[in-house]
Amino acid sequence: MPDTKPALFPQPGPPGAVETSDVLTPRFDANGLIAAIATDAQSGEVLMFAWMNAEALRCTIDTSVAHFWSRSRARLWKKGEESGNLLMVEEMRVDCDQDAIWMKVRVEGGKVACHTGARSCFYRIVELGSHEPGRLLRR
Amino acid sequence: MPDTKPALFPQPGPPGAVETSDVLTPRFDANGLIAAIATDAQSGEVLMFAWMNAEALRCTIDTSVAHFWSRSRARLWKKGEESGNLLMVEEMRVDCDQDAIWMKVRVEGGKVACHTGARSCFYRIVELGSHEPGRLLRR
Repeated sequence: MPDTKPALFPQPGPPGAVETSDVLTPRFDANGLIAAIATDAQSGEVLMFAWMNAEALRCTIDTSVAHFWSRSRARLWKKGEESGNLLMVEEMRVDCDQDAIWMKVRVEGGKVACHTGARSCFYRIVELGSHEPGRLLRR
Repeated sequence: MPDTKPALFPQPGPPGAVETSDVLTPRFDANGLIAAIATDAQSGEVLMFAWMNAEALRCTIDTSVAHFWSRSRARLWKKGEESGNLLMVEEMRVDCDQDAIWMKVRVEGGKVACHTGARSCFYRIVELGSHEPGRLLRR
């Protein structure tokens, strides 16, 4: 039986059109996912990086609350649904070739975006220069 | 004949170890790639999103100039090698599960990070709310 669900987004056109279009035509990858970056709307800090399928992207646009696709649990994931640390989307952007989403967010609840309890998932600095193996610092 | 090239990074341990380790053990995906986000070191603006393989990540750490893996050209890509718009890495971070890299960069040359001529690849805002299809605005 054919899939009769309506498409949530129009199909992308050729590359030039995708770059100049004023219509969102997300380019999902072979797994049906698009990369999503969340930054703190005030500080600009990158808080987390995750993936959205079409449903997660549609829910995020419709509700202004960040939804993702949990690859480990294979289900729609309303970030913070258990912890209360919802990500409220103040602005969403898409990149030139429409295969990445950037959201400026405000973290609700405990103000923590990472499941480890850190504010940001990016809590370790990679030391630059030829040190092998790469050293990580916390700051 | 076995591949005798030395590994550029140690193998990741189990999830808990990856989160707490002070050693960089990047978790490359099935294609050997890791997600990389570049933000403007001054403004915090997300400039671009791209992919690195182990060699690109190693070159970036060693030289503090951003290198990526060009999926379309299937080769190592020193961003700005033709345009002069190199991304000089001021700080690099890795996320909790070590499958994403965040770099704070300074754009050299024409100060433009996107191949379209825009400063950032994220030059379009996605209008939030239930508008179908999604509308994009330039601001």
